[in-house]
Amino acid sequence: MLGRPTLGKPALVLDRYCLNYKRIPYKTEWVEYPDIEPLCKKLGIAPTGQKEDGSGRDHYTLPAIYDPSTGSYVSDSFAIAEYLDKTYPDTPKLFPNDTTALQAVFTEVFRAKLAPLWAFILPSICTILNPRSEEYFRRTREATFGKALEELLPKGEVAVAEWAKYRDALTEVDKWYAKNGGKGPYLLGETFSWGDLVVAGYTVWLRIIWGEDSPKWKDVESWNGGRWKTLIDSLKEYETVV
Amino acid sequence: MLGRPTLGKPALVLDRYCLNYKRIPYKTEWVEYPDIEPLCKKLGIAPTGQKEDGSGRDHYTLPAIYDPSTGSYVSDSFAIAEYLDKTYPDTPKLFPNDTTALQAVFTEVFRAKLAPLWAFILPSICTILNPRSEEYFRRTREATFGKALEELLPKGEVAVAEWAKYRDALTEVDKWYAKNGGKGPYLLGETFSWGDLVVAGYTVWLRIIWGEDSPKWKDVESWNGGRWKTLIDSLKEYETVV
Repeated sequence: MLGRPTLGKPALVLDRYCLNYKRIPYKTEWVEYPDIEPLCKKLGIAPTGQKEDGSGRDHYTLPAIYDPSTGSYVSDSFAIAEYLDKTYPDTPKLFPNDTTALQAVFTEVFRAKLAPLWAFILPSICTILNPRSEEYFRRTREATFGKALEELLPKGEVAVAEWAKYRDALTEVDKWYAKNGGKGPYLLGETFSWGDLVVAGYTVWLRIIWGEDSPKWKDVESWNGGRWKTLIDSLKEYETVV
Repeated sequence: MLGRPTLGKPALVLDRYCLNYKRIPYKTEWVEYPDIEPLCKKLGIAPTGQKEDGSGRDHYTLPAIYDPSTGSYVSDSFAIAEYLDKTYPDTPKLFPNDTTALQAVFTEVFRAKLAPLWAFILPSICTILNPRSEEYFRRTREATFGKALEELLPKGEVAVAEWAKYRDALTEVDKWYAKNGGKGPYLLGETFSWGDLVVAGYTVWLRIIWGEDSPKWKDVESWNGGRWKTLIDSLKEYETVV
């Protein structure tokens, strides 16, 4: 697996959750931010979208995986998960119960709900990057937002209101979870699946970035009857970086 | 079942799809719009939300069902579907594969995607209502929108652009469907479920209101490789009003 050398990029958490859950052996190679695009182009790893600067140019992101048994490179976490289910049908499914289409909807909607979070997160990301990556990350994101990353961080009453928006977004997700029949902590009830990984991956990231004793993480742990903490705790064995 | 005496309210299509699919015997009683709230209050049928006029007052909607075997009234189509699955476990499931939570997400997102459609639909609804309901529908909706229903209808280039937005919204839904593994026309592939009913119910409504020879319906039929026509055709046997 190719990942970025940070402690906390969520997609990376997500993909290692997938690989660990399926008990597929892998090793991680860390790629600094400015090296991602040249490396992907060199290896023929597909772009995962277009750059946000309006240029229409391809945007390359990690993680990506290389599977020596098929000679395939795969990027984009959803595509990686689909690839793994298809290529290793005897491992536990990430998309059980024929739910791939519904999980695609959930993923898109859940990510959109995280919008209030980015202003809190982006300045913090810089604090866990190596200097080459930090310079690249800061320069490209500041060009996109037209201001210093630190200026993005909500302050005072705005911070309270924006943090409440994130809490409210998770509360909407909690209401969906509450429809799962109460048989377990997962979207499908007892059965663990991709959507739970998306929620856990993006949520555990906050603990990784801010630390488990930070007031913000304590907040998240306490929300929605502890649903998010319960979910993340249930996946603890799959968090390990290999 | 209590329904409104129109030819085309989608929630009504949805609920009769549910009952017919499960082969649960029922009869329909038609309730004119101005009688809905007093009847629901009298029978103790729960409101399904709040009025859109900002008053915070309860909003009562049909369809609702009365089940003589349990003495229960149930309103809100999703709640009706959950009730039917729970109360009649030996009938085909509307939420198979433990997907209730994911289907709740899908329902919410799909309905939100229909936003461009209402301006086309609302003026047409009046043409299929009885006079008492038409007067009520027109008066309450015109109070909400602050203009005559006919003025809502997009015209000229705006109409073209707004109709394209609806097409684009369905194209996004088509991309989700395309993730179903290609084993069948449904969200879960071969397995039919609630989400398909939501899509079919809201789409077939256009055919009911505008007629199958209308240019707009012909448009919808032709979109996304005929996916919507195929879906609706596959449910034809459950369309019957009993």
